[in-house]
Amino acid sequence: MTSIVPSTPNPDIVKERRNATCNSEELAQWFHGGAEKLKNKREIEHELFKGLEKGYGLKHEYLDHEGVYNRAVEQVVIASKKLKKLQQERNPGGNDIWPKGLYDVYSHGLFPANSPVSTHITMFVDVIKGQGTPEQVEKWAKAAENCNIIGTYAQTELAHGTNVRGIQTRADYDSKTQEFVLNTPCLQAYKWWPGGLGHTANHANVVAQLYINGEHKGIQMFIVQVRDLETHMPMPGVDIGEIGKKVGMAAVNQGFLGLKNVRIPRENMLMKNAKVMPDGTFIESPVSKLSYMTMVYTRCLIVNLDATYLLEAATIATRYSAVRRQSPINPNDPEPQIMDHVAQQLKLFPEIATGIAYHISAEHMWELYNQTVDEINNGQYSRLPEMHALSCALKALCTTDACAGIERLRLSCGGHGFMAVANIGNIYGNAVAAYTYEGENTVLLLQIARFLVKSWSYLVEGKKMLSSVEYLRQGLKKDTFPKWNNSWECIVEALKYTAAHKTRIAFESFSERMMAGETQPEAFNNSSIELLQAAELHGRQFVAETFWKQITGPKTANLSKPTKAALDNLVELYLVHTALRHMNDILRFISLTEADVKSLQNRLEAVLKKLRPEAIAITDGFDFSDGVLNSVLGAYDGNVYERIFEAAKMSPMNQKPVQDSFEKHLKPFMKSKM
Amino acid sequence: MTSIVPSTPNPDIVKERRNATCNSEELAQWFHGGAEKLKNKREIEHELFKGLEKGYGLKHEYLDHEGVYNRAVEQVVIASKKLKKLQQERNPGGNDIWPKGLYDVYSHGLFPANSPVSTHITMFVDVIKGQGTPEQVEKWAKAAENCNIIGTYAQTELAHGTNVRGIQTRADYDSKTQEFVLNTPCLQAYKWWPGGLGHTANHANVVAQLYINGEHKGIQMFIVQVRDLETHMPMPGVDIGEIGKKVGMAAVNQGFLGLKNVRIPRENMLMKNAKVMPDGTFIESPVSKLSYMTMVYTRCLIVNLDATYLLEAATIATRYSAVRRQSPINPNDPEPQIMDHVAQQLKLFPEIATGIAYHISAEHMWELYNQTVDEINNGQYSRLPEMHALSCALKALCTTDACAGIERLRLSCGGHGFMAVANIGNIYGNAVAAYTYEGENTVLLLQIARFLVKSWSYLVEGKKMLSSVEYLRQGLKKDTFPKWNNSWECIVEALKYTAAHKTRIAFESFSERMMAGETQPEAFNNSSIELLQAAELHGRQFVAETFWKQITGPKTANLSKPTKAALDNLVELYLVHTALRHMNDILRFISLTEADVKSLQNRLEAVLKKLRPEAIAITDGFDFSDGVLNSVLGAYDGNVYERIFEAAKMSPMNQKPVQDSFEKHLKPFMKSKM
Repeated sequence: MTSIVPSTPNPDIVKERRNATCNSEELAQWFHGGAEKLKNKREIEHELFKGLEKGYGLKHEYLDHEGVYNRAVEQVVIASKKLKKLQQERNPGGNDIWPKGLYDVYSHGLFPANSPVSTHITMFVDVIKGQGTPEQVEKWAKAAENCNIIGTYAQTELAHGTNVRGIQTRADYDSKTQEFVLNTPCLQAYKWWPGGLGHTANHANVVAQLYINGEHKGIQMFIVQVRDLETHMPMPGVDIGEIGKKVGMAAVNQGFLGLKNVRIPRENMLMKNAKVMPDGTFIESPVSKLSYMTMVYTRCLIVNLDATYLLEAATIATRYSAVRRQSPINPNDPEPQIMDHVAQQLKLFPEIATGIAYHISAEHMWELYNQTVDEINNGQYSRLPEMHALSCALKALCTTDACAGIERLRLSCGGHGFMAVANIGNIYGNAVAAYTYEGENTVLLLQIARFLVKSWSYLVEGKKMLSSVEYLRQGLKKDTFPKWNNSWECIVEALKYTAAHKTRIAFESFSERMMAGETQPEAFNNSSIELLQAAELHGRQFVAETFWKQITGPKTANLSKPTKAALDNLVELYLVHTALRHMNDILRFISLTEADVKSLQNRLEAVLKKLRPEAIAITDGFDFSDGVLNSVLGAYDGNVYERIFEAAKMSPMNQKPVQDSFEKHLKPFMKSKM
Repeated sequence: MTSIVPSTPNPDIVKERRNATCNSEELAQWFHGGAEKLKNKREIEHELFKGLEKGYGLKHEYLDHEGVYNRAVEQVVIASKKLKKLQQERNPGGNDIWPKGLYDVYSHGLFPANSPVSTHITMFVDVIKGQGTPEQVEKWAKAAENCNIIGTYAQTELAHGTNVRGIQTRADYDSKTQEFVLNTPCLQAYKWWPGGLGHTANHANVVAQLYINGEHKGIQMFIVQVRDLETHMPMPGVDIGEIGKKVGMAAVNQGFLGLKNVRIPRENMLMKNAKVMPDGTFIESPVSKLSYMTMVYTRCLIVNLDATYLLEAATIATRYSAVRRQSPINPNDPEPQIMDHVAQQLKLFPEIATGIAYHISAEHMWELYNQTVDEINNGQYSRLPEMHALSCALKALCTTDACAGIERLRLSCGGHGFMAVANIGNIYGNAVAAYTYEGENTVLLLQIARFLVKSWSYLVEGKKMLSSVEYLRQGLKKDTFPKWNNSWECIVEALKYTAAHKTRIAFESFSERMMAGETQPEAFNNSSIELLQAAELHGRQFVAETFWKQITGPKTANLSKPTKAALDNLVELYLVHTALRHMNDILRFISLTEADVKSLQNRLEAVLKKLRPEAIAITDGFDFSDGVLNSVLGAYDGNVYERIFEAAKMSPMNQKPVQDSFEKHLKPFMKSKM
């Protein structure tokens, strides 16, 4: 079939690009960390998408569950070879076939439904490097990086996710044979959810309760071979399979694992920290806090991933909104681009601002992470708790906002957003998994709340405060907020002030309950609604301040005036929008006049108007290629209707005029005299 | 395989049922409109689910796109025969094989992914009855009801949905042959989205622009045969197929339709209102307003449908939360049911209250509808605009809240909510379609806003106000809200007062813009953010007042005290939760003290506590059978883990230990020296 998609772009989108003042190429360099990195990224993408058949991105929509999996494995292998080749050309002798910088491109670019080796890449290798002895790293990590073995990380069980301490898989040390004997004591203890565990991995990091001579020694990690390397058959004592279809991540091949007297050598317990000696002597881990840093690191990745998903959805919806024309504003005028409807602008532009705010916050967190690692190497651990709390907040807020935003963006595309080939539904399905994994969001917010409660009690007791919660001090006195003005600083300060007073109020409820006789944990549980709100605001003030300071700081100093202005407008939008969104809290603690609120409303309307002509250029600046977006609504050239039509014609059901069920079921039914 | 699901229920859920005071059987009778109706519903469900193979609900998850469709057709035919048989036993001689009361059961009970004849049932027959002459009804509606023909409703086009006036399909009258000639003038004019149009329907109500002698005569409806009744092949000039996979509604078989010089007899235009005489004389429709009532009717159905979806999801998540145990509250205690965590209660109970609030509002709207129909039959049309505005508000708010709620409920189930067999993802996919169809929600809210602007100008001009907007009068004077007290009436009055003042403010912005020289539509567009907020609040006060008044009115008079108390607590929760949610608006217009706000917060916490022991009994009271819920997390007996495990074992990928891609792709890759 010759393509009906015109070779020239849609005139509406051409006009948008011509009229924008913001320079999308300049923005792309800024967004991707410099001209060199952008060039790299483009070359890698070009290589990965080269030679793929037309409509490859649609194909998996029409395969059955098994077909989706097998095709994903094939594509993983093809992509891996391409990546390896690139890697060798650029860095001969380098061994890492999954260079971190490529992961983004790899994971949601080429495989819209994600891949069965994602967990192998992101966790299996890293955990061995982080928790293994040098010998273990030498033995396992190399083989894993070379993909001679494929692994996964098996922690969560059918009945335990959040409460890791409650997991029931058991490893008993047998000093006679110097082996661990692994067992799944009951159905609820089956490992559940590890990516690639179903039919892909042949090894797993199994998290289990260690027992030595019947004595409990806490949670440890064990490398267990689960499938034969030659036949891929499950190893003896291993009950393994996939958990079935999910809301998203169609190709991740999440699996289950039951173990029955599976014996592994003593050397298969990861022993960088805790150790088991041949005779069964247990040596406790000298450090307990360091695993926090792994979590901080992983959460930076997740924030960046979900921010990217949000910006992908925003790009698709914004391009569609530039091309779709509907419903005249003045009855006698022609139908405008739907982006001219202010209600539509309100659906699009705040999501763009939010995506960038989290992108920047993740980068900033990354810098803090590296500073903290340096400090730790110098023996200073004081910053760990606040790093942990900030990373929890960022992860919880980013994934919550990104998911809600992606769905709003999908809905902003009307009916056509409901089609699979719009791809926003898939983006949502993949993004929303992060709401739960690596710390369920509500659980994370409650951890922040615990940190805030502790910080507040330090404050009351006059102890030294960590810098990230120094602002709580304002909560000690009521009615101390300086006069409201229209500056960005004022909005950020208002969020801090509100967060401080929300913390005070939550702490008061918590204390009252304890004084009324509740235990501390009961009081915490019963105050959790207010505590959650305080935790949320703690995150909000951090993101707002970070976004504001980073955009007005040195990192944007070299941008041209119009490009910088576009970013400034996004900060303005983000801050005003956030303030209005939390007005219920702000108004409880800060006296705003009717005119103040009206002025915020006016600013919201004004900044939407300013962003309107720049929106396409801004989203172009994220530099998502058509292959990455994989959307009939979001292609760079804006030829939406032709792509929708062409995609429909490619549906396998349309390859024959009449489906089998007609003669078999429908016709006899229509003819039956009922 | 013998089932591993125990024959006895989970003890946690048994305990819940034993300890509840609310009577779920009594609640079920109340919810379903009486003992007789409940009995009927159960018998029908029993019949429909009888004889279905085990796990039938999972099967379609693992089929390919084509397989899902063909299986759905088969099931539709089986279910239709069962329904017909039931119908004949109960009402011999009755002709309607789609008794309205059965539709709910039919549409989302038996077919979790909806069905390819949904549009035939809900629209094709009704449109002919509503818009056809007696002869047309005799000819077409009977055949359709007997399923001798299968139809659909083809209005939306690739480039026009919201703005129906913009559709481009054209029908030219040829008086020589007394035929209409139908054409799709361009790609953008292809019909897109009609349910069942792809490969199921052989007829379609095609909405097109009528031209007589080149003169435009507005939009009319035409019955077009699109496929041959014997061969099911597309008729000459008909380009037809399905539009491809969607986010939900996997089996609805939505289609596209292009027409090229398709000729149909003059009698195929539906002529109850407008008419074309054989010589080409056009007789305009004597009525223009009546079609509003069809929309009101359809929106009642949608509100009821999405409220039901929300309550289904709430039932699943609540049952899961009674069985899942995680994370001790006191560190030394055993892990509690997660429903004991207050944060979890906040995710569950407000959704239950919201679902019932909309269920009741839809019923109330239905009564208003019938009253209005009576009035219209007596020549009184005055109530139409407010009925239209209220139905728009109900539809927009219910579908928005239901979808957000369903997704929150899914996320409240943690990782396991992400599994397809939890079924909340499917429920969401089907529910969220209603956000867009039958009036996109933002577009509907803007219509309400237009009605409010008009009403406000009536108010200012001293004209008579319709009763549903009489409350706007309070917006004329500031600071007139009586002292805040803790009654339900006070909360409802506060919502009304706030809605009135929001309308004032929005109207002021709108007027200012017009005075500054903008045209009325421009000013409306530029004020649309505030107008949308006013429209939302107009809906909120209606739902809040309806819920409150209906639960405290005669309809619950016969309930036992504990059951009535449960409903009262749901009203309390709904009102307090709604007030807190809109506190940003309320605080702008009403002076609440810090103590007032704290008291609302305390009430929220108190009512969650009261509802905790009743939650399972309340959700039991919706009487969703296991077949309808189709969820491993939500079965009545609470045997969650066994069902999850059994479902995973049924995945087709688990029927063989090694997938084909291993030998073909993975093994060579693992062995390659890279």
